[in-house]
Amino acid sequence: MAEQKQRVSADNLRNFIAGAFEAVAVPGADAKVIAELMTQADVNGSEGHGVFRLPQYIRRIKGGAVNVKPNIRIEREMAGMALIHGDNGMGHLVMKFAAEKAIEKAKTAGVAWVGARWSNHAGPAALYANMPLAHDMIGMYMAVGSANHLPPWGGLDMLLSTNPLAVAVPAGDEPSIVLDMATTVAAYGKVKTKAQRGEMMPEGWMMDRKGNPLTDPKRANEGFLLPIGGYKGYGLALVLGLLAGNLNGAAMGKDVVDFNNDDTSETNTGHAIVAINIEAFQDLKEFKQGMDTLIRDIRNSQRLPGVDRIRLPGEGTHTTRADNEKNGIPMPPALLAALDTLAGELKIAKLAR
Amino acid sequence: MAEQKQRVSADNLRNFIAGAFEAVAVPGADAKVIAELMTQADVNGSEGHGVFRLPQYIRRIKGGAVNVKPNIRIEREMAGMALIHGDNGMGHLVMKFAAEKAIEKAKTAGVAWVGARWSNHAGPAALYANMPLAHDMIGMYMAVGSANHLPPWGGLDMLLSTNPLAVAVPAGDEPSIVLDMATTVAAYGKVKTKAQRGEMMPEGWMMDRKGNPLTDPKRANEGFLLPIGGYKGYGLALVLGLLAGNLNGAAMGKDVVDFNNDDTSETNTGHAIVAINIEAFQDLKEFKQGMDTLIRDIRNSQRLPGVDRIRLPGEGTHTTRADNEKNGIPMPPALLAALDTLAGELKIAKLAR
Repeated sequence: MAEQKQRVSADNLRNFIAGAFEAVAVPGADAKVIAELMTQADVNGSEGHGVFRLPQYIRRIKGGAVNVKPNIRIEREMAGMALIHGDNGMGHLVMKFAAEKAIEKAKTAGVAWVGARWSNHAGPAALYANMPLAHDMIGMYMAVGSANHLPPWGGLDMLLSTNPLAVAVPAGDEPSIVLDMATTVAAYGKVKTKAQRGEMMPEGWMMDRKGNPLTDPKRANEGFLLPIGGYKGYGLALVLGLLAGNLNGAAMGKDVVDFNNDDTSETNTGHAIVAINIEAFQDLKEFKQGMDTLIRDIRNSQRLPGVDRIRLPGEGTHTTRADNEKNGIPMPPALLAALDTLAGELKIAKLAR
Repeated sequence: MAEQKQRVSADNLRNFIAGAFEAVAVPGADAKVIAELMTQADVNGSEGHGVFRLPQYIRRIKGGAVNVKPNIRIEREMAGMALIHGDNGMGHLVMKFAAEKAIEKAKTAGVAWVGARWSNHAGPAALYANMPLAHDMIGMYMAVGSANHLPPWGGLDMLLSTNPLAVAVPAGDEPSIVLDMATTVAAYGKVKTKAQRGEMMPEGWMMDRKGNPLTDPKRANEGFLLPIGGYKGYGLALVLGLLAGNLNGAAMGKDVVDFNNDDTSETNTGHAIVAINIEAFQDLKEFKQGMDTLIRDIRNSQRLPGVDRIRLPGEGTHTTRADNEKNGIPMPPALLAALDTLAGELKIAKLAR
């Protein structure tokens, strides 16, 4: 059932995305930043968080839900923290600003925690957790998801999102370790993909309102996602939401707007990014050597029968990125068709391929 | 199969624990601090992490594995961080020192991250995450567990521990939210309890070396614990270990000493505590009102059939604490017998009850 995908170069994708944002009055420099980050998401294989979201982003800008000329600014600041007011700008712009601020502050404070409110969906969590890596820092990112799909444990009302956590840690000769996880067993995008392909879901992804396993993805709206580890995943989704949402004065619980089904409302999305300056804690070279040793110990450890390789978090992404940078990003026909339609609406050139 | 438990007052327990540590040359003031924290663990219902550990702690002190007169000190410091050298002292002393330092620094930096190395097992994670609460701060605690029970996903070699995470967030009129979770489906202590009671474990707790479910707790040493959410829990255990271990120059992976089966080796245990000053981010009163609203929205939300109550993380602990403070801490006969034996060995008075 594999779809016939076409490979598109990162350059072509970047130009197309920037052009689309410029067509809805996003200033050129900002359009470039958003296009670069969205393209990185696709290059890294985060299919559900890259250009796939473009029609929705453009629709929300056209609907007045997102501010195309935000005054993104520091609202509060101390030595080890800052709170960013996103002025309802695109989340990519807000979180790039926040990550840069965290990195700058961690140079002198050792560790800096930067929260953001009045932001919007910013793409995959790892994009921002990765930013401190180039400065020999560890990055940690948390967000309130942009739609509630998760009830509290034992409940029916979807008061929580799949609130993600990403942590990126640099190594020496080995690739960095990058964990990027939703707090549900499956992300909602995976359910949509199963539905599109006419496949059933395994038990454990979703539950119906009577507490029975829900395996038909076409009935997804009759149930809800399940958290990892039962009540533990519920607790994790909740506290990530408190740290990225409540602490910043951003939306949580009932206040979260489902941005998939709303083109006019501000979301007041909250995120947080932490930059940890490794040299504040220990010698950088020793740290990296220790990381390399640990990574090799894990990779070369004994395997369960039938397992071909022990993977480190982020390993799949590193492989995908190398492939996509060389051969282009694989794009399914349905997505290409949607982007062609968008190009027509915006009166811009179609995505070159 | 419920054991006949005897209730012991917190005061009696505290005195007994302090006396035991003094009997092995721990200075009186330090013995009091450790006794207070261990008693809090029992009052909170963390049965596997309170006085249950006392015989083991004393054995390791007698074996020379733990330094009874440590010079716990700040090794490195910047505005938003510190690294504590525990000098191989009891983990409780090291992490109380670290948490107080984090709280002090967060007053001026807004957020402070304090790591520790050359520490030891410190009891339940929530003890330290809770410390910032009294200062209207959020607390976050991570640790490298003191024994490896978890292989990397797809692997057989137990290179990881059940590395715990605790996050404590204050509310207004409602009790604080306190998440305290291991990254495995079940903690190893639960397996031991099942074995003691002659009960089988549910599928999903453990796996044998062929990849089959292991449900007989008496065969626990033929397999290993399973992480929450499969590879996600593996990733979470790993990055928590990187943050609490590698970053601080503490033991991780192959270097972790199983302190259950070793009375002579230093463990170089690593932990991290983060204190987040809520007022740095927003008005404290508004934050607490928002927390109360969210907590009530969750508690009063619709329930699955058969569910009597939607719980918030930490709710069970709050209930247990109130009960134990009033009626004493329930202690199983086997534990009381072990403590009596210990009292005989140390030539101190038995635990009063």
